[in-house]
Amino acid sequence: MQQCTVLFQPDNIRLEVDKGTDLLTAARQAGIEMKASCGGKGSCGKCRVKVVKGSVDYQDQPTQDGWVAACQTLVLDDPVVEIPASSRLNGHQVLLAGAPALPASFPLKPLCRTVRLEVVPPSLTDPGNDLDRLCLAFARATGLQLAGLELEQIRSLPDLLRRNNWRLDLTYGIVGDSARLIGLEVPAGDAAPGSWGIAVDVGTTTVAVYLVDLASGTVAGQAGTHNKQAQFGDDVISRIIYADEQENGLADLQQAVLDTMNGLIQDLISRQGIQSREIKAVTVAANTTMTHLIFGIQPRYIRLEPYVPAVSSFPVLIAGELGLTVHPQALVYAFPAVASYVGGDIVAGSLINGMTESEALTLFLDIGTNGEMALGNQDWIVTCACSAGPAFEGAGITDGMRAMPGAIEGISIDPATYEVTCFAIDGAKPVGICGSGLINALSAMRQTGIIDRAGKIQDLATPRLRRSDGGMEYVLVWAGETAGGRDIVITEADVKNLLRAKGAVYAGLRSLLKAVDLELDSIERICIAGGFGNCLNVAAAVEIGLLPDVAPEKYHFLGNTSVKGAYTALVSSGAVVAAEDLARRMTYLELSLGNGFMEEFMAALFLPHTDLTLFPSIDK
Amino acid sequence: MQQCTVLFQPDNIRLEVDKGTDLLTAARQAGIEMKASCGGKGSCGKCRVKVVKGSVDYQDQPTQDGWVAACQTLVLDDPVVEIPASSRLNGHQVLLAGAPALPASFPLKPLCRTVRLEVVPPSLTDPGNDLDRLCLAFARATGLQLAGLELEQIRSLPDLLRRNNWRLDLTYGIVGDSARLIGLEVPAGDAAPGSWGIAVDVGTTTVAVYLVDLASGTVAGQAGTHNKQAQFGDDVISRIIYADEQENGLADLQQAVLDTMNGLIQDLISRQGIQSREIKAVTVAANTTMTHLIFGIQPRYIRLEPYVPAVSSFPVLIAGELGLTVHPQALVYAFPAVASYVGGDIVAGSLINGMTESEALTLFLDIGTNGEMALGNQDWIVTCACSAGPAFEGAGITDGMRAMPGAIEGISIDPATYEVTCFAIDGAKPVGICGSGLINALSAMRQTGIIDRAGKIQDLATPRLRRSDGGMEYVLVWAGETAGGRDIVITEADVKNLLRAKGAVYAGLRSLLKAVDLELDSIERICIAGGFGNCLNVAAAVEIGLLPDVAPEKYHFLGNTSVKGAYTALVSSGAVVAAEDLARRMTYLELSLGNGFMEEFMAALFLPHTDLTLFPSIDK
Repeated sequence: MQQCTVLFQPDNIRLEVDKGTDLLTAARQAGIEMKASCGGKGSCGKCRVKVVKGSVDYQDQPTQDGWVAACQTLVLDDPVVEIPASSRLNGHQVLLAGAPALPASFPLKPLCRTVRLEVVPPSLTDPGNDLDRLCLAFARATGLQLAGLELEQIRSLPDLLRRNNWRLDLTYGIVGDSARLIGLEVPAGDAAPGSWGIAVDVGTTTVAVYLVDLASGTVAGQAGTHNKQAQFGDDVISRIIYADEQENGLADLQQAVLDTMNGLIQDLISRQGIQSREIKAVTVAANTTMTHLIFGIQPRYIRLEPYVPAVSSFPVLIAGELGLTVHPQALVYAFPAVASYVGGDIVAGSLINGMTESEALTLFLDIGTNGEMALGNQDWIVTCACSAGPAFEGAGITDGMRAMPGAIEGISIDPATYEVTCFAIDGAKPVGICGSGLINALSAMRQTGIIDRAGKIQDLATPRLRRSDGGMEYVLVWAGETAGGRDIVITEADVKNLLRAKGAVYAGLRSLLKAVDLELDSIERICIAGGFGNCLNVAAAVEIGLLPDVAPEKYHFLGNTSVKGAYTALVSSGAVVAAEDLARRMTYLELSLGNGFMEEFMAALFLPHTDLTLFPSIDK
Repeated sequence: MQQCTVLFQPDNIRLEVDKGTDLLTAARQAGIEMKASCGGKGSCGKCRVKVVKGSVDYQDQPTQDGWVAACQTLVLDDPVVEIPASSRLNGHQVLLAGAPALPASFPLKPLCRTVRLEVVPPSLTDPGNDLDRLCLAFARATGLQLAGLELEQIRSLPDLLRRNNWRLDLTYGIVGDSARLIGLEVPAGDAAPGSWGIAVDVGTTTVAVYLVDLASGTVAGQAGTHNKQAQFGDDVISRIIYADEQENGLADLQQAVLDTMNGLIQDLISRQGIQSREIKAVTVAANTTMTHLIFGIQPRYIRLEPYVPAVSSFPVLIAGELGLTVHPQALVYAFPAVASYVGGDIVAGSLINGMTESEALTLFLDIGTNGEMALGNQDWIVTCACSAGPAFEGAGITDGMRAMPGAIEGISIDPATYEVTCFAIDGAKPVGICGSGLINALSAMRQTGIIDRAGKIQDLATPRLRRSDGGMEYVLVWAGETAGGRDIVITEADVKNLLRAKGAVYAGLRSLLKAVDLELDSIERICIAGGFGNCLNVAAAVEIGLLPDVAPEKYHFLGNTSVKGAYTALVSSGAVVAAEDLARRMTYLELSLGNGFMEEFMAALFLPHTDLTLFPSIDK
């Protein structure tokens, strides 16, 4: 195979590849993380690059400005390729919440802790073996039975005991009723050393991590970034296809998410001056597909009818088995899933949103890359997932982007002139528009008559409304005011996408209510979780029919309940038992069955809905 | 370092070694297994070789015939070395007992078995995960909970279920109350496949193995050989020193015993046409040091006061972790030890010798490389070990050897002429004398007055009695009638060794009785186990004061109770629970403490004893 050299700019990274390699693959091999929402199928156009020099084979025609999709451009002869910032995953910010408080129902009882043991030395009259002596000292100190020791741990015990004059710091994790040995260490200092834990929310799009002092339950640091799997596709379906169809696809995806987690952990512990060996427990809340990928389990059948995961309740592993750069014996606990599309993140959220401790009917809504919800109280919970698609995370939208600096969030439109005022995150020059911005835009466009109830963009007297190849579009920001030098627009196709997304969520809610024979007004609390965080404008979301039209005081924003649930399991081992029990008790409603979902969905593809009586507070 | 080439004959194996390497080490590296009772310290003289050509550095002077100890001879310049058959471990036979019957108290309930499962396929209305479906089908078929699945097993499950149309053969092992998955297989044939097990007795000297059909409990084959660790020393102490002091010593010893086990397993399964993957459970009964070495646990502290093992109750492992060539997930169960010198072999024997099921006071005596005994009944058991040394296995005796063809076993001496008639095993030309032969010899020599009560050889009128460098010796067989062409003799030093060995056993028994304040005649059954098997002449053993002088009908020969106990655990999982419980209930008596052992020992260094009232039936 003929070799060519690709030079990527402005990185100035040179790489030898086989002739015929596409530029997206070449960039990945060069360690450059590029957006690839469609997973490299040439349909999303997010992996735009410019070929500055050299020869390539264009599968698609370049734009007038010379932009091409990297995944559709094959190396012919030593090209120089420019990758703009807008095509990169780097620099992504994750909105982190304030440090969480431990729910009252979960007292501080860390998933693992360290205890200093004084083991009674043997004598001729008391010649019991080393392991029994250790277990006895442990039982006296903790009241717990030490179980399931690894052979390597037993092998190290005799010398360790004698070298330290029968004093040891023993770190253990709680698995069910028994204590599992994590590590034995030479005592250093007067008190037993602290143990640290990592709580992780692995989203399809973003990964958020807490560093937790297990003795006190204090969150010592937070970090977040994009999931490096985004190089292989934006949504769970494209990831599953990649895992299923590509050679080493599963291994690539597992490595990508582990790299993401390890990078965040490294970042946090180096900030705090902690060694990776001091991290002795990791809890993970993630959707079902992500959890499969983290564990290296093929998620193929999640995508195929009847949509069955390989496993719902994952085994408690040790970190060394997975390749997390923490203490090799650290416990790794992943929240159990309910079904293929209702995962451990929803179980984690349901565990801490209060719904299991109250008679009050609660709706828990997590709108991320997908839309999942749970409805219930302390006695019962039903749950469903609606394939809302990632529109609210900016995917599939012409100028959509995630919530990061430069993303337009606030929008107001003058009803007389149709002129628009935009506010981008961090006051930066606008780059695109994020989920909460899209909701605000849709709401404002509806109120000002720019779109009608069916989402059709009207042809009104303003230069901001214009006809393009794909139909009408509305210019939010003119090229001169943007960071990218191109108009930021909302097209009729964007509106359709958003209608489908919001319609799916609302139809899911209606189907769920119908399944338990309850009405909207019986819901006493609506808890919102997910990327929106506190940025979601409830009035606008109700205006477009995404959220139900109920009293605003019923709404509660809980932020990232997934990482908060993971945190709770880390600091209260009872939460692990509770989560396993909760997942078994949550009843899954499959929306593709004949439960009226499609009718509800069709009815919800309007602004706000075909049935206006459902939205009494909305100005018609 | 200068390299030399050693040529070993008659093997015709050529090997490059560093100049200065001793010939014992060189032979080991060449894969030739040599005797080395003392572990290569130059004291036992078992590793005799002849340097035929080339140059060596003799640390000890060669004999007139040119024999030298290989361990004391260093390579200088390309020697040719002859290793006689008598210096090799090869060709060793282990006496195997007939197939055992399962004790009535342990019903057939194999440690592992295979069940054919029909898993209910998922549907949109029943979309539960694959693992839960498997567990449900298993619980329905067996009434057991499947626990603790390995990640790899979960990873393989989805495709395996679908490839076989939701039918699987599942092999599981019983660990405590739960079932552990061993393997999932594609059904072949109409019935679920059989599962096989291996029961192993790992003695310091010999290893014996049963191949067992787990479904029926039938022993399909037996095999035995020498423990390849014998290359590194004869007794447990020399092995512990080797493990402790040599670089890679522990790994060498572990590999040697695993190689021994794997060789026997391979031998048995190839005879039966069984694949190694069909072996799904392995049970091991061994002394404490051997069990440590099998598991790769440093036995150092077993040898150092206060003689503490690292562990007594060993974790249930999977074979792949250890490196046994059976199914990689096969269960490996080792019997628990009571103390450093009362191991799993004694627990295994006590489990099946009937003492735990009767009110009758039973003495269980296992005379192998060491002497261990247990005394008790269904309510209590005390146990001790006496460092009898390996004299009864032929070690430390001028012409001692193990029970194999050519070993003299039967001896009769004419009281008038002192002429002797010997019978060697298999009618072969005599090579040496084994343990039961030594007992017979001692008895006959005492009866005929060749030795006095103190073991001193008399100077009587026969050419068979002569004075040598080390004192008097008695010629059992003249050179011309032996296989080796040298006189086979018993020296005064040999007699002293045997007196110490038999005295230690008898003194141990007396100490044990004193500890529970009982007399000899309260013992209702005496069970003899160990290498002697049925060859032990009880009258002769009583005559020399090795065994107590009680009614002959109280004696029972149980053969190799160690491998029989391992067999019982293999076919009755309840025996595993019982063995763990039994080991905890057995009270260990440390003979080096002030319990009168030394006084008893000194009194027992006579034939039969200083206190003749203890041996009323013996002709004075």
